[in-house]
Amino acid sequence: MSAPIAPGGTIGILGGGQLGRMLALAAARLGIKTHIYAPPGDNPAFGVAAARTCAPYEDEPALSAFAAAVDVITYEFENIPAAAVDYLARRKPLKPSKKALEITQDRLSEKAFIAKLGLPVAPFADVHDAASAAAAAGMTGAPAVLKTRRFGYDGKGQKMAASGDAVPAAWEELGEAPCILEGFVDFACEVSIIAARNAAGEFAAYDMPLNVHENHILRTSTVPCGLREETRDEARRMAKAIADALEYEGVLAVELFVVRDETGEHLVVNEIAPRVHNSGHWTQDACVTDQFEQHIRAIAGWPLGDTRRHSDCRMTNLLGEEALDWPALAAEPDTCVHLYGKREIRPGRKMGHVNRLKRR
Amino acid sequence: MSAPIAPGGTIGILGGGQLGRMLALAAARLGIKTHIYAPPGDNPAFGVAAARTCAPYEDEPALSAFAAAVDVITYEFENIPAAAVDYLARRKPLKPSKKALEITQDRLSEKAFIAKLGLPVAPFADVHDAASAAAAAGMTGAPAVLKTRRFGYDGKGQKMAASGDAVPAAWEELGEAPCILEGFVDFACEVSIIAARNAAGEFAAYDMPLNVHENHILRTSTVPCGLREETRDEARRMAKAIADALEYEGVLAVELFVVRDETGEHLVVNEIAPRVHNSGHWTQDACVTDQFEQHIRAIAGWPLGDTRRHSDCRMTNLLGEEALDWPALAAEPDTCVHLYGKREIRPGRKMGHVNRLKRR
Repeated sequence: MSAPIAPGGTIGILGGGQLGRMLALAAARLGIKTHIYAPPGDNPAFGVAAARTCAPYEDEPALSAFAAAVDVITYEFENIPAAAVDYLARRKPLKPSKKALEITQDRLSEKAFIAKLGLPVAPFADVHDAASAAAAAGMTGAPAVLKTRRFGYDGKGQKMAASGDAVPAAWEELGEAPCILEGFVDFACEVSIIAARNAAGEFAAYDMPLNVHENHILRTSTVPCGLREETRDEARRMAKAIADALEYEGVLAVELFVVRDETGEHLVVNEIAPRVHNSGHWTQDACVTDQFEQHIRAIAGWPLGDTRRHSDCRMTNLLGEEALDWPALAAEPDTCVHLYGKREIRPGRKMGHVNRLKRR
Repeated sequence: MSAPIAPGGTIGILGGGQLGRMLALAAARLGIKTHIYAPPGDNPAFGVAAARTCAPYEDEPALSAFAAAVDVITYEFENIPAAAVDYLARRKPLKPSKKALEITQDRLSEKAFIAKLGLPVAPFADVHDAASAAAAAGMTGAPAVLKTRRFGYDGKGQKMAASGDAVPAAWEELGEAPCILEGFVDFACEVSIIAARNAAGEFAAYDMPLNVHENHILRTSTVPCGLREETRDEARRMAKAIADALEYEGVLAVELFVVRDETGEHLVVNEIAPRVHNSGHWTQDACVTDQFEQHIRAIAGWPLGDTRRHSDCRMTNLLGEEALDWPALAAEPDTCVHLYGKREIRPGRKMGHVNRLKRR
């Protein structure tokens, strides 16, 4: 276990979006500098960091200089090209680890990892050629969802298959990329658990939010979620099992389906994100330590912060032109407005969020 | 009344210390950029701003370029050279106004302003020559405190005078600078009120903290302060009277003495700071909107934020080497650690603070 990164040290962050930006703001509160690495584009994290590198992930001299300038490297999203990850991880500690990244970058290895831990997961099958496409629904049942193994987010790279016969056509539509077919889970609602683990093995989880999606994009996260205490405890145990198995350092999010049947309320793991997560943004204004500072603490080798929630809260994403409502939102009582400083508004683009606190 | 500064706009901040830094972090949350102007030195605000100018306050080309690059100009401290203020205020809106700055930069004009509003203030006298030094205690009584009219802070530029006879010698020790003699207030405790006003005339105040000083430097601020509701209401009325009289835009702090006698609990105005204030740092973790965001909102022409306090809190400054205790402080429950990223530790230097929340 290496020495912690003291105030004055520098954390390198791969990715210049809103998550990198909020990580940089959290690091600054602790007196830790950030250096953002991102390819050319609209990188709102650049404006709040002590240093920035604007270069493609394939630019080895830029990667090398970046690695030399920082004490530890983290990332705001999991779809970083593997070659860049390899190159950087040989030069400076990468946290969460390359192993955590490799497992969660690939939907198939992620599902296999979860299943191997004995945690409940939808039935799934590997789709990599015409034969496996034709046979996959035999393992998952139908309807099922065909997803590319890599680089999907917010519903991109997915096709529904109403029956097993529809899978080959869906696979063709996804460009015959390596895919996973996932059995359809008839869920009552969706929740997530945001948790953290550090190198010392400390583990801490936040209260679990209820998440509502629209068009595959998160719309609201609400705490408390209204689930039974036993269910919430079960989610914590699942997150701890995953974090421990990965010897994880940092914040991770586990998205869960809630299934209700005659035997009660059950959880099924949907997916793991090896990073801070949109469904944890409410922690910024409702908890002692928020998810962004918690991630910085965990990767810097600091003690984990207190996840205690002092307020009930609903986070609502501001998508596209909804962010233009800022004058009205800013006038609402009990409302914390967060805007990401993105230059261009596009339909469905995450431009900001509001955390509405509820008086107890 | 000018149009509000929309997300994407830029606020110029004079001063690169911890207050400028925390203002920049708060602006970033709202999607507003900051440009820090500060003379060479250890400027921790530089590392979190979108742009920075490192130049003396006498550098007119630098001031000119700075003014051209921003939408509004504010400041983190009131001791900005008058020539720079004049130069900038002719080019871009300065908020709080030049008038607010001029009155509060000068202890004599500040006390006269407060007295003219009919608010209780210690008796005071102008000391500007040998004759006024000899006569001043006749107006204030003794003991009294002789203070330079300008550029004093944290107890610097002050001398106690046990009797009127001691005033001329004290004046000599202060270099015969223009001074004010202030009658000694036998106070029970010290409090402050942090409030905000915007161009629309909206006014909002925070709960009043109890402040404890050591060696003239703030040590702790605690809410609730334990004073009677009538006294707290009176403080709000005083802050509003001051803010309205100045047509104030921004956050201001009014430091108050609490005097107890046979007729009850009374407040005496000590001084006004035309800016965010150390005794308001607890708002970062205990209120819906903190003082830094509130200042940004007020000077940007946004609606004021909700000052509601959701938690009880004690803020403790980390002075000098106390900041080296960060590993232990970071492990405390219910504790929010704030470090300013200053490069050099010096005895008594404000290096950070902790906000300890209390469970209700």
